Amino acid sequence: MKREIPYKIYLDEKELPKSWLNLRAFMQNKPAPLLNPQTLKPMTLEELSGVFCTELAKQELDDTSPYIPIPDEVRDFYKMYRPAPLVRAYCLEKALGTPAKIYYKFEGNNTSGSHKLNSAIAQAYYAKRQGLQGVTTETGAGQWGTALSMACSYFGLDCKVYMVKVSYEQKPFRREVMRTYGANVTPSPSNTTNIGRKILEEFPNTTGSLGCAISEAVEVAVNTDGYRYALGSVLNQVLLHQSVIGLEAKTAMDKYGVKPDVVIGCAGGGSNLGGLIAPFMAEKLQGKADYRFIAVEPASCPSLTRGKYAYDYCDTGKVCPLAKMYTLGSGFIPSANHAGGLRYHGMTSTLSELYAQGLMEARSVEQTSVFEAAEYFARVEGILPAPESSHAIRVAIDEAKKCKETGEEKTILFGLTGTGYFDMVAYEKFHNGEMSDYIPTEEDLAKGFAGIPDLKL
Amino acid sequence: MKREIPYKIYLDEKELPKSWLNLRAFMQNKPAPLLNPQTLKPMTLEELSGVFCTELAKQELDDTSPYIPIPDEVRDFYKMYRPAPLVRAYCLEKALGTPAKIYYKFEGNNTSGSHKLNSAIAQAYYAKRQGLQGVTTETGAGQWGTALSMACSYFGLDCKVYMVKVSYEQKPFRREVMRTYGANVTPSPSNTTNIGRKILEEFPNTTGSLGCAISEAVEVAVNTDGYRYALGSVLNQVLLHQSVIGLEAKTAMDKYGVKPDVVIGCAGGGSNLGGLIAPFMAEKLQGKADYRFIAVEPASCPSLTRGKYAYDYCDTGKVCPLAKMYTLGSGFIPSANHAGGLRYHGMTSTLSELYAQGLMEARSVEQTSVFEAAEYFARVEGILPAPESSHAIRVAIDEAKKCKETGEEKTILFGLTGTGYFDMVAYEKFHNGEMSDYIPTEEDLAKGFAGIPDLKL
Repeated sequence: MKREIPYKIYLDEKELPKSWLNLRAFMQNKPAPLLNPQTLKPMTLEELSGVFCTELAKQELDDTSPYIPIPDEVRDFYKMYRPAPLVRAYCLEKALGTPAKIYYKFEGNNTSGSHKLNSAIAQAYYAKRQGLQGVTTETGAGQWGTALSMACSYFGLDCKVYMVKVSYEQKPFRREVMRTYGANVTPSPSNTTNIGRKILEEFPNTTGSLGCAISEAVEVAVNTDGYRYALGSVLNQVLLHQSVIGLEAKTAMDKYGVKPDVVIGCAGGGSNLGGLIAPFMAEKLQGKADYRFIAVEPASCPSLTRGKYAYDYCDTGKVCPLAKMYTLGSGFIPSANHAGGLRYHGMTSTLSELYAQGLMEARSVEQTSVFEAAEYFARVEGILPAPESSHAIRVAIDEAKKCKETGEEKTILFGLTGTGYFDMVAYEKFHNGEMSDYIPTEEDLAKGFAGIPDLKL
Repeated sequence: MKREIPYKIYLDEKELPKSWLNLRAFMQNKPAPLLNPQTLKPMTLEELSGVFCTELAKQELDDTSPYIPIPDEVRDFYKMYRPAPLVRAYCLEKALGTPAKIYYKFEGNNTSGSHKLNSAIAQAYYAKRQGLQGVTTETGAGQWGTALSMACSYFGLDCKVYMVKVSYEQKPFRREVMRTYGANVTPSPSNTTNIGRKILEEFPNTTGSLGCAISEAVEVAVNTDGYRYALGSVLNQVLLHQSVIGLEAKTAMDKYGVKPDVVIGCAGGGSNLGGLIAPFMAEKLQGKADYRFIAVEPASCPSLTRGKYAYDYCDTGKVCPLAKMYTLGSGFIPSANHAGGLRYHGMTSTLSELYAQGLMEARSVEQTSVFEAAEYFARVEGILPAPESSHAIRVAIDEAKKCKETGEEKTILFGLTGTGYFDMVAYEKFHNGEMSDYIPTEEDLAKGFAGIPDLKL
């Protein structure tokens, strides 16, 4: 029997997933393995364990276990902010006058302000269990850094954060939140690493990039006893942890007998989208149900829509393993787009492979159009969204408008990954009409592509 | 049968209160009426209706109806962010090693960042129903201004906000949030009003005060066609709307068979505390149950603990009605304490009367001790609290520590009114050791007291 659907569906604490869903296990054509940049052979567990905690390295390589149990300690932490609400956007539907039914999974009700905490607490847990002293990481928009700071604080670990310089400057208060949780935050590129010094020498005016910050964090991790590196996106392990988003969303929808026609998420490295679609895509791969999936990326950093599908470096400094992915080249430095979390040159290999197989669509959107959607959404739904999340809002609104034209009563699910409380500099620029729409030229892209190695595999 | 208590108790949407609780109706000795500053007679409905919407003026005067229905339109808006969670602070209990059971009602999961939205949406609704064009208001910490901006945006009303200058400067991004919701924000005192110009002439370096911002907002409201004034605290109508906090908290506790021994809340004008304690105090007044209540205020603005119980002006400009309340004098300008929402010179007359009758306790706490509690709480409970809310956290922790000493298993309930995401300047000062603890001297107080009128009523 269908029940009347409330504005917010909160699952019971007991309905919190007990296992993560490992999407790769459901794929017949698996994502290509990570390669050692020296040997060009697939990374071994031993090699990966020098960079990541051993248990996380195992998760990184495991493409056969469909489900991996969530440790009790991680579930206990999840209970402080999860299950996260699935919201029926009644007000947005009404404002748009659309026959579409719109739902969003809201991940912003925690101090990190986003979904990033889901993987941060898992990574901190495994680091603690391994007896480590601390972890290093990079952060773009600052959400991942905040999340990892919170997680490390909870387990009593040290946390060293390299923050992309443009975000460090645009988001002065993010640093203070991380400090509240006891983390050390350094703007990247910095003079504290070899790769940082090298990049600063070559590009003294760079505003930084995720790829560069990753290189710095990895360099410090592998050269410091008792430390490993933690990454907030791109990796298989992160998509695994983020599957909690999709699992909760699907449980909530199933409870009310609702099935989404289309699932939409923003995609930078791909962690949120990979997590959101996980159980739905697993059904699609098994032929149990069909869904449309749309990845939304900024027009200024269009890895899926304009990138190449090739093995490439994950970081600017080329110290990390190579991944096969849609990429703009590790040397591609996007403009100072305000969605700092979407400024990565590549896309997680799992989503890349699904996209290559035609199982997922991709769309790129321009910045001012994203902020128009963000402000509209804030006013009608009462939540001030993060610029990253607003990419998904933009396309969800566009899809709902199409339904208005065609009269179709489609069910749309999108991921609202976080809040924009630390993005008010960007909103201010938008309000003052000072926001620009940068789209890389073919020449810009060619420069980035030139840095993609020609591996002849 | 007692059920196992989850980390977060979310009531069902259907359990959202259908009526507000009007605490005054349960009091034998009612709070003293508001007086017309010219005639010194109780304010009439007609007089109040020049300042407030007529329906709100009626609510202001109604001290006999125990319950007042919540309009459906307001309940619909509530459903976007309510019921708010009641959280069992398992991690805090564990970190403190206390036998106490600690609960907090969390009101920060909405974009205004606090409980203020509960009354803002009610006030905007009545303004809209009356056919007004807009409302004016003041804001201290910025939370009320944000809340009213959101509420006005929802109902399509104009919103003019006078923001206490020190908050305007400490919280640059708050203005941008209000702008996102279409509000006009002016730092107070300003040159846009007679009273603002007068205060600036007398005290050119003032950092402003709530009392002064109120005067400016009222001046504009009564002199502009189609406008009324909206206030975020102090008034009876605001306590009425905020009773939704306590009603939800009590319903959630009753469901699990839990009864608080002590209820703790921060108190500036008193809206949060008045709302939180409403159903519990109503039971106490009826002799149905006993509870301890503790109001927590900053040592820098100690209206209950060091003020006088007397009729006084509610605003610096003396344009508002007089209220009988604990007051430091309307000319008292507190130091630049970072809990901008607690810098009001008086205390709502309902709480003042309950305190005078010995039905409630009060305690004042110093700023650095409040931030120590705030940071501790952020780390163990994962929520970065507002400085205002952290006053309640400080005393809740102190009470829990006492339980540790005595071995008592008391149940503590406190109000976590909001998040501190826009208070990072204050956290930064705390981290840098630049935070001061100002306590007014007897001489400072005497100056404020000198401004309290000697009415001989």
